[in-house]
Amino acid sequence: MTGLFIVFEGGEGAGKSTQESLLGAWLERKGECVVRTREPGGTPAGEAIRTVLLGKDFEGLSDKAEALLFAASRGDHVDQVIRPQLEQGAIVLCDRYLDSSVAYQGYGRELGVERVRDLSLWATGGLLPDLTIVMDIDPSIGLSRVQAPDRLESEPVEYHRRVRQAFLDIASKDPEKYLVIDASEAADVIAAQIAERVSELMGRSR
Amino acid sequence: MTGLFIVFEGGEGAGKSTQESLLGAWLERKGECVVRTREPGGTPAGEAIRTVLLGKDFEGLSDKAEALLFAASRGDHVDQVIRPQLEQGAIVLCDRYLDSSVAYQGYGRELGVERVRDLSLWATGGLLPDLTIVMDIDPSIGLSRVQAPDRLESEPVEYHRRVRQAFLDIASKDPEKYLVIDASEAADVIAAQIAERVSELMGRSR
Repeated sequence: MTGLFIVFEGGEGAGKSTQESLLGAWLERKGECVVRTREPGGTPAGEAIRTVLLGKDFEGLSDKAEALLFAASRGDHVDQVIRPQLEQGAIVLCDRYLDSSVAYQGYGRELGVERVRDLSLWATGGLLPDLTIVMDIDPSIGLSRVQAPDRLESEPVEYHRRVRQAFLDIASKDPEKYLVIDASEAADVIAAQIAERVSELMGRSR
Repeated sequence: MTGLFIVFEGGEGAGKSTQESLLGAWLERKGECVVRTREPGGTPAGEAIRTVLLGKDFEGLSDKAEALLFAASRGDHVDQVIRPQLEQGAIVLCDRYLDSSVAYQGYGRELGVERVRDLSLWATGGLLPDLTIVMDIDPSIGLSRVQAPDRLESEPVEYHRRVRQAFLDIASKDPEKYLVIDASEAADVIAAQIAERVSELMGRSR
């Protein structure tokens, strides 16, 4: 594959989409072909699954069903969008990916980290990002920024604390592939940190 | 658990719902509490997933995503309907269950029988039927009875032949838990065979 696969992860209200948007615009100014996508979603089936996962109509959804739905949506997304775009050399920016499942379902729901990771690896044929940017923020600050909380955002703050710690643990094990950002900094400061790291990556890989 | 869990499996157009209906009526006449349900579906999330799985809008759905969606729907169904009903002593009749995934995705899509089975066992906490009734029919006859074929029914006949063989193989390994029915027989003859076997099972287990 000749493209680059960059994922934004982190808790709610950490500014992922703002930074994804700034990075996308910066890359486009450099003449790159940028594809912005998100999970769950990104394909017709994925968007339909998203309404089940995040919709308030499905309050009683079992935890394992939730984990399987995320993996299904991800598999379809990789097959239909991410892998074909990477093969054509695009830079794919994705709002959430496999680590969100590990953090929210594996750690947050306590379903087992290995099991949850394995579901997604199977679904995606083992595709992992070149770089994951973890937008780290105290959940009590992040959640206060969310205006209309969805089904997952409505979970208690202890759940979100487990999720935060999970992202930090995952990132600390592989600093080559992860960049942890203090999301309480100003947006332009963060954008510069991200651009620096992505420049480095582009210099190295292409 | 004090209830009984009876599943109808088999190819398209084999008369599963006719027989499920006849068995349900027969059990109710004997004073049993009968719950009739189906897969994929049976819960709000399950029915939403069903539209993705069977809808013609989602033609490009990846095979692994398909398998994960079936497992998700099944996990939710067991958690919210099947297990609670069995715990209250009901006889649950279900149109399709885990073996359909093994046959259609494991054998039919060649995704790996063990992997597909394991997804569903994980999703359902290992719940297996007390009896599975396999309605066996030549796919070329069964499919000719289907009026408006859905996404899976529209697969080529060789796919459906693999699925048929899969059901027969699964059943032959565990005759205690499976009853194979020649679905080309008359409906009342079949209903009598099923009633006899279910009577036996009820005598033994309750």
